[in-house]
Amino acid sequence: MSRTYKLAVLPGDGIGPEVMAEAIQVLDTLASKSDFSFQYDHQLVGGAAIDAVGKALPAETVAACESSDAILFGSVGGPKWEKLPPNEQPERGALLPLRKHFGLFANLRPGLCYPALTASSPIRPDLVEGGFDVLCVRELTGGLYFGQPKSRTTLPDGDIEVIDTMVYKKSEIERIGHVAFKAAQLRRKHVTSVDKANVLTNSVLWRETMLEIAKDYPDVTLAHLYVDNAAMQLIKAPRSFDVMVTENLFGDILSDEMAMICGSLGMLASASLGKPKGDGLYFGLFEPSGGTAPDIAGMGIANPIAQILSAALLLRFSLGLEKEAVTIENAVRKVIEDGLRTGDIYTGVEGTRKVGTREMGNAIVAAL
Amino acid sequence: MSRTYKLAVLPGDGIGPEVMAEAIQVLDTLASKSDFSFQYDHQLVGGAAIDAVGKALPAETVAACESSDAILFGSVGGPKWEKLPPNEQPERGALLPLRKHFGLFANLRPGLCYPALTASSPIRPDLVEGGFDVLCVRELTGGLYFGQPKSRTTLPDGDIEVIDTMVYKKSEIERIGHVAFKAAQLRRKHVTSVDKANVLTNSVLWRETMLEIAKDYPDVTLAHLYVDNAAMQLIKAPRSFDVMVTENLFGDILSDEMAMICGSLGMLASASLGKPKGDGLYFGLFEPSGGTAPDIAGMGIANPIAQILSAALLLRFSLGLEKEAVTIENAVRKVIEDGLRTGDIYTGVEGTRKVGTREMGNAIVAAL
Ligand SMILES: [Mg+2]
Ligand SMILES: [Mg+2]
Repeated sequence: MSRTYKLAVLPGDGIGPEVMAEAIQVLDTLASKSDFSFQYDHQLVGGAAIDAVGKALPAETVAACESSDAILFGSVGGPKWEKLPPNEQPERGALLPLRKHFGLFANLRPGLCYPALTASSPIRPDLVEGGFDVLCVRELTGGLYFGQPKSRTTLPDGDIEVIDTMVYKKSEIERIGHVAFKAAQLRRKHVTSVDKANVLTNSVLWRETMLEIAKDYPDVTLAHLYVDNAAMQLIKAPRSFDVMVTENLFGDILSDEMAMICGSLGMLASASLGKPKGDGLYFGLFEPSGGTAPDIAGMGIANPIAQILSAALLLRFSLGLEKEAVTIENAVRKVIEDGLRTGDIYTGVEGTRKVGTREMGNAIVAAL
Repeated sequence: MSRTYKLAVLPGDGIGPEVMAEAIQVLDTLASKSDFSFQYDHQLVGGAAIDAVGKALPAETVAACESSDAILFGSVGGPKWEKLPPNEQPERGALLPLRKHFGLFANLRPGLCYPALTASSPIRPDLVEGGFDVLCVRELTGGLYFGQPKSRTTLPDGDIEVIDTMVYKKSEIERIGHVAFKAAQLRRKHVTSVDKANVLTNSVLWRETMLEIAKDYPDVTLAHLYVDNAAMQLIKAPRSFDVMVTENLFGDILSDEMAMICGSLGMLASASLGKPKGDGLYFGLFEPSGGTAPDIAGMGIANPIAQILSAALLLRFSLGLEKEAVTIENAVRKVIEDGLRTGDIYTGVEGTRKVGTREMGNAIVAAL
């Protein structure tokens, strides 16, 4: 009996729809070779939803997501909607409420630099030779960004005092820890936990909890780095990392640093995971790390790889289709090795050829 | 009438004494050509003080610092004292109490990559061509590391909750802001303020305050970066920074990232500034960013440049001898351009020559 997975497909704005089309093509091709199929529920989100029905996240879109196995998200935003009040704009009006509604607590960002693309990295060639592949796992719902109290007080002497609060519960740390260790089991089986345990009470509990969790994963090794040292080691030794796990603020900084080190922002996928479904699977939202690129929207030249790799993450983390996820990742790797480049990663190197969105998608489909 | 400056000289452990000797040689040579002189009060600190009198920061050392115009510090620590209780070890037992006693609230770390040493940077050569020169100004006494409450609580349901608190007063932000703007006036007159004003209450006040302070410095331009973006821009465009100013935690991360990007840790000086003396001058402690390097201590091969550049910072920020500070910095630049290299920065490139601590010091003295 064949299994049908239901996916909420939210292409959004800018290049979203055209790169989404390639991801769907990839998924359909995989399904045609397997004993499962996908049922897509296409829904409006972001600026496209504002234009059509007046709000960035229509109730119908949320309902469709609720009745799906996962959300494949494009990207939202653009100059057209920048004059709206902040909370009604595409990003704040759609992505943040979606994260909140579905309790997406784990942000996974693979920092992948293919051997053939190391020249795009801002790091010295000898340090990134052969490429690298880091998975950054960031806690997304706790810590300093959300902790209470947040306050601003005028003191008796006229001075002003501001307060933000970093709060974590052990259960929140355990939850993200398990995501990291389970992800490592599918990879090179090493977790680097990043904290500031020499100074922060939060980090002391973080480190204790990671050490405890590690006992459940005897096949995975665990190392600890202070956050300032991690910021250094990512630059000097990106190849030394497999899975990096850290709290919200540190992850905000380090995942962006890692993306920069990769050199090709248009290649980077991301996953935001929510409720565990058991078996190491989670409901989740999967999207490219890059933006809507309104300047090239509709021109058929955008890089679809981040969207396609986001679909691979969806298979891995929400559906448990690890083999199929790897099939997509290998196909992407192959077309890159074959020299195909969209404009954003084309540098004119001999043996490479500039292609459009559709041709890149077709090549990946052919390589599946 | 000639002026005499009184300096507390605390060489400390490891390579401290031998690199300090070169810094003193440089200061004496400068004085011999000028209408001022230095009076040095050599004092024990760190492991050396533990061995001699049983504690890392003897009262006599503190008293000597109190009656001085500034502190020239070497470095402290080493394997010999690592088995002591943490608070009695050289670093925690000497440096932290000194910082606290003198209210050293501003940590300045020049991130300097000389044109001749860009090959040592982990950044791609085209991005650091011609070198770069960033001054990182970090607030050192406030924020998440020191804010109260810090707590750990077992909740009724058995979960554990930890809290750290990020607190700043506007007066603390003003104080560090003025340090940054005044430093920029002596440089390329641009300040980049780093915050997370889209999320943190602390950062909203930080940004407001920097905008206010900027009005006092019409010759200095001000830009703002979010901390995650700053972590990226430091890598991609280190040449775009002049002075970067940020709060304690962000500065901890970014100043280390910057040091890594410079590529030559043995070249980096630092200043920790305390009570303003007026005229943009401050009491301060000046020390190399690197450590005691116990493995090469006493061998005469350590790089004295960080210590010598720390002396230049002392002249600039504690004594107001800007011209003489620049004289030292130019002399260092000249010996590097002439090809002299201690072992830590020697790569065998043609036109360079490996020298020891004393020969490097002598060459800098000769170039003054
Ligand atoms: Mg970020
Ligand atoms: Mg640090």
